[in-house]
Amino acid sequence: MALHDEILEQYDVLKNLLSSQKNQVEKIAAEIKRRNIEYVFLAARGTSDNAGRYANYLWGAYNQLPLALATPSLFSIYDRPPRLKNALVVGISQSGKSPDIVSVIAEGKRQGCLTLSITNEADSPLAAEADFVLDVKAGVEKAVAATKTYTAQLTAVAMLSAALADDQARWKELDNLPGWVETVLKLDEKLAYLSTRYRYMQRCVVLGRGFNYATAFEWSLKMKELTYIEAEPYSSADFMHGPIAMVDQGFPVMVVNPSGKVYDSLLPLMHQLREVQQAELAVISDQPEALALAQTPIPLPAGIPEWISPIVSIIPGQLFGYHLTLHRGLNTEAPRRLSKVTETN
Amino acid sequence: MALHDEILEQYDVLKNLLSSQKNQVEKIAAEIKRRNIEYVFLAARGTSDNAGRYANYLWGAYNQLPLALATPSLFSIYDRPPRLKNALVVGISQSGKSPDIVSVIAEGKRQGCLTLSITNEADSPLAAEADFVLDVKAGVEKAVAATKTYTAQLTAVAMLSAALADDQARWKELDNLPGWVETVLKLDEKLAYLSTRYRYMQRCVVLGRGFNYATAFEWSLKMKELTYIEAEPYSSADFMHGPIAMVDQGFPVMVVNPSGKVYDSLLPLMHQLREVQQAELAVISDQPEALALAQTPIPLPAGIPEWISPIVSIIPGQLFGYHLTLHRGLNTEAPRRLSKVTETN
Repeated sequence: MALHDEILEQYDVLKNLLSSQKNQVEKIAAEIKRRNIEYVFLAARGTSDNAGRYANYLWGAYNQLPLALATPSLFSIYDRPPRLKNALVVGISQSGKSPDIVSVIAEGKRQGCLTLSITNEADSPLAAEADFVLDVKAGVEKAVAATKTYTAQLTAVAMLSAALADDQARWKELDNLPGWVETVLKLDEKLAYLSTRYRYMQRCVVLGRGFNYATAFEWSLKMKELTYIEAEPYSSADFMHGPIAMVDQGFPVMVVNPSGKVYDSLLPLMHQLREVQQAELAVISDQPEALALAQTPIPLPAGIPEWISPIVSIIPGQLFGYHLTLHRGLNTEAPRRLSKVTETN
Repeated sequence: MALHDEILEQYDVLKNLLSSQKNQVEKIAAEIKRRNIEYVFLAARGTSDNAGRYANYLWGAYNQLPLALATPSLFSIYDRPPRLKNALVVGISQSGKSPDIVSVIAEGKRQGCLTLSITNEADSPLAAEADFVLDVKAGVEKAVAATKTYTAQLTAVAMLSAALADDQARWKELDNLPGWVETVLKLDEKLAYLSTRYRYMQRCVVLGRGFNYATAFEWSLKMKELTYIEAEPYSSADFMHGPIAMVDQGFPVMVVNPSGKVYDSLLPLMHQLREVQQAELAVISDQPEALALAQTPIPLPAGIPEWISPIVSIIPGQLFGYHLTLHRGLNTEAPRRLSKVTETN
């Protein structure tokens, strides 16, 4: 299956990306630093939008850059784009072909902003439009559900963060990424077994916060695309402002909570969900206490810095989605109604 | 029931807000124009976050202001706030008490930004922290699910947009708002009947785009809070990038699609959902073609400008949520696990 192959390719893809694109990333970072950039204006959809969510936290925390997620319809349908003074305008798209994302980059250019396309297609319309292209070099992705292009986009975002901060320690931490990816890919068989439990699940929620807010969204999207399960993602804080009311006995809650600054803030909610509301938990974490709360514990290797953890922690989610799709007797390669390139205006 | 009363109070609340706060709004707008504001940085959670989604489109389209939705954990948990140079920092909170939202305003102030709190509690910590307070004057809201404070927040956002643009024509259009609200409140009995159909619904999706993206989110949130139904909101464009795969015969799809620029872009998707995927549609619209596609047509009055339509079009959604809660035998006043003030860090 292409989907399974592409998930397993991620070790090679990320290793290659880290070495082959470092110079280009440094070049882009130098130009960003040369300009008077006050914030990032980022356009993306679907899986790429989740890479944008990661950029929002990472560039905010480590590069002090506020990030506005573009509302592409203001550009494409309303034809009333905002004033983008001193913005770095970024488009993220695997195919580089969605007209609404291209229109945001084009408008940024028209307004004289520095523009950057992060894409897997260096000869796409999105790439052609931008001042700089960061090619994520994931190779052809055949399966409709994006996997290796997602982790490659996150890695590109992470590399740019390290380059902008000129932080050699974080570049070194990134060198360990392929090794951690290799370790979690070994969970393949275990996840084939663990996911059987969810054969008849109809709905669930997926929680994450901070850097792994993006992971919750992406795990959820894989389940929706591949298994047609209504899997709804939330930041744990937003979840407490209303949606937590839905959870009753046995309600399945997926939690992404590796070590890091937000770990402690999510833990009390996990205890409440399990012990008070009697929810059923599947947990991706390296922490024994978090894993012990789960009916379905999914262990991560220890020692991954929180800022890199989203690139590793989505991989068990991808494998979980793949195997659950097989268990449900569905098509892993081409989910119904979806095509690889979605052209929205 | 307080919830029902508060929904029905919206005519008076908005009429009063439009007259009593116009001067304060003009004062705030004058100060914003005096400063070199390049973008808005906005913090909110839950229902107030949906008011932020409306501001994102409205201030973008009519005031050319890009808007970044804050990630409060960068301020409260990571203690790594971004640099907010030339930003207008806005906090929206009904109670004005959520510590993470207050921390964003406090940081904005620390960095020398102009700060604005939009709240229903003029003596709250959020109000105390900001340079300017826009009190939405909705009166005490007893029901846990926010209704009148939401439309009041949207109206405050709309007033500020008209004031910033110094647009007398749009101020005049706002004068008609209470009349439209009065008309849709007359749908109360009809929605009591129409909502019975959904007594046993377990999940649905809610679609909207552009200005009414916020309406889709807020209608969905009311269903989750009150009826515990897994109602997932999407922009119609994001929906086509993956989640549309979930829709099979009879899948309930709620659509908010009043007249306006995005109407035509949503219509083909509605045809596809109904005619190809055999989904079941509930539609809030003033357009006969959109209503004709619905098993459950919910008519809006004609002639509402698109930019104002979110303030009106959520009201049938609120009434729908209220009546469905009664049909399901649940508590309309205090949903399980929720309290009126949610204090997240």
